[in-house]
Amino acid sequence: METLPRVTIWNEFRHEKKNEQVARIYPEGLHVMIGKALGAKGLDVQLAALDEPDNGLPIEKLVGTDVLVWWGHMAHGEVKDEVVERVYERVLAGMGLIVLHSAHFSKIFRKLMGTTCNLKWRAIGEKERLWVVNPAHPIAVGLGEYFELEHEEMYGEHFDIPAPDELVFISWFAGGDVFRSGCCYHRGMGKVFYFQPGHETLPTYHDPNVLRVIYNAVLWAAPSGGPQVTFGHRPEPLEPVK
Amino acid sequence: METLPRVTIWNEFRHEKKNEQVARIYPEGLHVMIGKALGAKGLDVQLAALDEPDNGLPIEKLVGTDVLVWWGHMAHGEVKDEVVERVYERVLAGMGLIVLHSAHFSKIFRKLMGTTCNLKWRAIGEKERLWVVNPAHPIAVGLGEYFELEHEEMYGEHFDIPAPDELVFISWFAGGDVFRSGCCYHRGMGKVFYFQPGHETLPTYHDPNVLRVIYNAVLWAAPSGGPQVTFGHRPEPLEPVK
Amino acid sequence: METLPRVTIWNEFRHEKKNEQVARIYPEGLHVMIGKALGAKGLDVQLAALDEPDNGLPIEKLVGTDVLVWWGHMAHGEVKDEVVERVYERVLAGMGLIVLHSAHFSKIFRKLMGTTCNLKWRAIGEKERLWVVNPAHPIAVGLGEYFELEHEEMYGEHFDIPAPDELVFISWFAGGDVFRSGCCYHRGMGKVFYFQPGHETLPTYHDPNVLRVIYNAVLWAAPSGGPQVTFGHRPEPLEPVK
Amino acid sequence: METLPRVTIWNEFRHEKKNEQVARIYPEGLHVMIGKALGAKGLDVQLAALDEPDNGLPIEKLVGTDVLVWWGHMAHGEVKDEVVERVYERVLAGMGLIVLHSAHFSKIFRKLMGTTCNLKWRAIGEKERLWVVNPAHPIAVGLGEYFELEHEEMYGEHFDIPAPDELVFISWFAGGDVFRSGCCYHRGMGKVFYFQPGHETLPTYHDPNVLRVIYNAVLWAAPSGGPQVTFGHRPEPLEPVK
Repeated sequence: METLPRVTIWNEFRHEKKNEQVARIYPEGLHVMIGKALGAKGLDVQLAALDEPDNGLPIEKLVGTDVLVWWGHMAHGEVKDEVVERVYERVLAGMGLIVLHSAHFSKIFRKLMGTTCNLKWRAIGEKERLWVVNPAHPIAVGLGEYFELEHEEMYGEHFDIPAPDELVFISWFAGGDVFRSGCCYHRGMGKVFYFQPGHETLPTYHDPNVLRVIYNAVLWAAPSGGPQVTFGHRPEPLEPVK
Repeated sequence: METLPRVTIWNEFRHEKKNEQVARIYPEGLHVMIGKALGAKGLDVQLAALDEPDNGLPIEKLVGTDVLVWWGHMAHGEVKDEVVERVYERVLAGMGLIVLHSAHFSKIFRKLMGTTCNLKWRAIGEKERLWVVNPAHPIAVGLGEYFELEHEEMYGEHFDIPAPDELVFISWFAGGDVFRSGCCYHRGMGKVFYFQPGHETLPTYHDPNVLRVIYNAVLWAAPSGGPQVTFGHRPEPLEPVK
Repeated sequence: METLPRVTIWNEFRHEKKNEQVARIYPEGLHVMIGKALGAKGLDVQLAALDEPDNGLPIEKLVGTDVLVWWGHMAHGEVKDEVVERVYERVLAGMGLIVLHSAHFSKIFRKLMGTTCNLKWRAIGEKERLWVVNPAHPIAVGLGEYFELEHEEMYGEHFDIPAPDELVFISWFAGGDVFRSGCCYHRGMGKVFYFQPGHETLPTYHDPNVLRVIYNAVLWAAPSGGPQVTFGHRPEPLEPVK
Repeated sequence: METLPRVTIWNEFRHEKKNEQVARIYPEGLHVMIGKALGAKGLDVQLAALDEPDNGLPIEKLVGTDVLVWWGHMAHGEVKDEVVERVYERVLAGMGLIVLHSAHFSKIFRKLMGTTCNLKWRAIGEKERLWVVNPAHPIAVGLGEYFELEHEEMYGEHFDIPAPDELVFISWFAGGDVFRSGCCYHRGMGKVFYFQPGHETLPTYHDPNVLRVIYNAVLWAAPSGGPQVTFGHRPEPLEPVK
């Protein structure tokens, strides 16, 4: 893409309204926090939330979206199947998708992966260190060899996903666990990036490294403008067949 | 596995009953043809068909199945969702799955892939040559560098699948098309192999190379007996966390 | 990279001087042809040839190169080992490398692959059709689903390379062969792309699709500016160890 | 393979003769320790050491070897280039290769990888936990979800290797590092497995899980008997070309 991608940030936006601790960290919602950071880097940002009509994702909004960022946790089941289907079709048609933290269990991610996307977890706010294992990857631009989150929810292996097409981060957790925390996939014409940090009761989306990764991922996942593929019956061979 | 895998061959088994041409080639059904070939190599073979109770796949039968071979075409939509779910869970739990030809569009394959699995096709019976591009792969054992099918339905790129974990065959078609015709995937504890040949009006499953590939794939896809993984909350860190 | 990459095009540049047919197609050398095309798209282009001092690649020139394009055929053995070592180190440090056609047998490509890079070939100028099998890949931008070369040297499987990190093209040849003709690799901080077309006696580098692929590949292979990695002894643990 | 593979275990075998601590742990050499464990499981085992004629690997011995296990550390440079070349050719022809611990820097592994194979290290004997991230892989058979080594040398990212074809283990180190500690590659007809544990001053090769992994890896890496591939000129097309 020669122009900067148009990003829509979808947030379940329930914790912030129900839990004081979360509200203090993200008074306007974590999508607003991420949106401001991406906007400050020049991206064209829209917001969307579960409790809006059409779960915040009417078709016109999706059509105007190059990359969709998705955070959900307690209400995956409330996302309408027709909205999931709509997002799915847009991803296959080329829209990028950035899946954050507890959205590993979102309907859309599970549908795109074909697995349970289950994992281990422990929410005591232990230290996480994210190691870059693919330093040449565009999602690692501007980072150091690793970066740390003083307190994060542990997500641990085994993570039931297909082997990533490209593995960018492996996380070390103080409690003895590791996790494939930055995973790239291609599905149809679309690119998908799963990124592990982001527990709602911790200020993870205030962290400049985390925000840098999301920004990099948006650039990476933007549609690249490849060939229009066709499917179905092709009555004539391209060559006369002997 | 130290013992030979127990195979169940699932066939839609409709074309054979409705179409004389198909019936001449596979009078008892193509699953019987494949089953006899695998049985002759010492495998323990069961059969299953769409129109049997539970679509031929009650849970007890699946539990006794190490590898499921699947052929379907005209009636993908008639496979009950609960049966698809049951097969899906067995695959994630370790059962191998061999997906043949037009079963690229089966519910189970699409669910495991997370993509449309769409492709191009042309049914004029042109020549196909299957080239081995991963000669060290166990699915290529006992083959030559390539083998030919004098007449096969063309399946052509673009094939809308995730990039295979291992690509074993690329097919050349006389009419000018190519196809990734032997694709390996891992999903959960299970292994999945898609193999392109097998149009119902052609004697593809009489071909010794095709049967050899299916046999090899069954051995490759059999459960390997790895660790039992666990998911969910792990209340205590393995290490005391500072 | 926010600025366009600086490209150096290295050509063995012997055939053009010895063979009239080649000289007619590429009177100034095929590197000049490719260089003009890339320059016309705004890239900063330098040229280099085997018979120049230091085989055309003194260290200063390499240091000023973001992406190196390499064509060689009859004189792979005359490239000095120290020059190969120098290019190798630059690739691992992040310089992109585009390896064209018969350079599959170049010292630098074999060293980076760790395999023989051997293949089958037939130089009767048969038709080649290059199918895009990864339409979302940036190297496929601006192409159709496939493109054709009326006459090209056949390169056929088995191609003795590591499985590509990303496979972009599969070629169909009229004579019955297929070939993984567009292959992406990561080595150290560097990206490597092998692209099959380009027999010296044919006007392949006059073809706009071929030139578009090379241009796309240069953009893809340019250094992305990831973290500086470090190696060796790290005397202190980052955490006190119990 | 229907019969059990013939294994040769190559050891540099210098530390054991010069360092009392090492000699106490491996009085006969660590290759003997590993060899006894593999022999007890029924494998046909031969031993080889650097200071033997031909570095312990005359061609006849290699020809009778299905899988070669390699441990080296202080004397990589003393392995003769002609022996490295011989092993390399055998791997490409189908011999399996298991590369242990400090042999990440061996000539043969670097030649097969095409990268520096450099890494970080710290030898304070901290705790390592090896997590299985591919539980369906045959190399993980018979293990738990993870296993621990109370004391091991830390090897940390970034590990300068090509992205593994299959990643089986990720290690957690108490000091804050992670490592891709079990990595599968295919090179030519051969399979290569790198396995990180095995510092000479620690009793790592007494550990039953470590020995189980080596055993599993030998079975996985054994030649599978695929097609004989051919290279070079193929004068006639398989099909008449229009």
